[in-house]
Amino acid sequence: MSAIEIGTRLVQLCNDGKAQEAVDQLYSPDIVSIEGQGTDEMPARMEGIEAIRKKSEWWFANHEIHSMQAIGPFCGHRDDQFVVQFEIDVTNKPSGERTQMSEVGIYTLKDGKVVQEEFLYRMG
Amino acid sequence: MSAIEIGTRLVQLCNDGKAQEAVDQLYSPDIVSIEGQGTDEMPARMEGIEAIRKKSEWWFANHEIHSMQAIGPFCGHRDDQFVVQFEIDVTNKPSGERTQMSEVGIYTLKDGKVVQEEFLYRMG
Repeated sequence: MSAIEIGTRLVQLCNDGKAQEAVDQLYSPDIVSIEGQGTDEMPARMEGIEAIRKKSEWWFANHEIHSMQAIGPFCGHRDDQFVVQFEIDVTNKPSGERTQMSEVGIYTLKDGKVVQEEFLYRMG
Repeated sequence: MSAIEIGTRLVQLCNDGKAQEAVDQLYSPDIVSIEGQGTDEMPARMEGIEAIRKKSEWWFANHEIHSMQAIGPFCGHRDDQFVVQFEIDVTNKPSGERTQMSEVGIYTLKDGKVVQEEFLYRMG
């Protein structure tokens, strides 16, 4: 599948509330996931599909999602890359704090699978 | 300046209608600019600040801008990278065709200057 096809499927699955299925269907076993910042519990850089599944499960278990919209994909000259924008309204269950997050994910492909996802957060 | 500072300034200048000043202030002489697709007149990959200035002048001369909004910057773990989202409503003067474009730019920094800008277009 091309970057447009993989990106379109990822956006569709996220908007259908099937983010875990996106990981199962579209990610490489050797996926690298990079957040802006890490914690002791969740380091910024994680490798391997099992670590990414656990991170995703942890995230959904610790957040009440009021709305989540995936927008895109955005594609350019590289057929091994696309970007997706996310608008997320969540409450962090442990703290009770509600946040509206706006972020973009830069996805890198190899052999038709996502091998890296990197998240950048709206700062301005 | 950090990625957040440079990205914030770029967004501000674009939203003030001063995109050319952003190039003058923030870009390296060795800037590489990569569009999704090129034409004979405007190749997808251009190098050097003079080529980028001419591309920008050509673009503003050939488009009537109804609105242009820069959103961001989006920043992550790399201090040499940020993303800006653009929502643009323009009429192409030669064709008369009006288009609403949604795109993201991925900016790479070196020694406090933008050395690469890469544009990806919303496909879904």
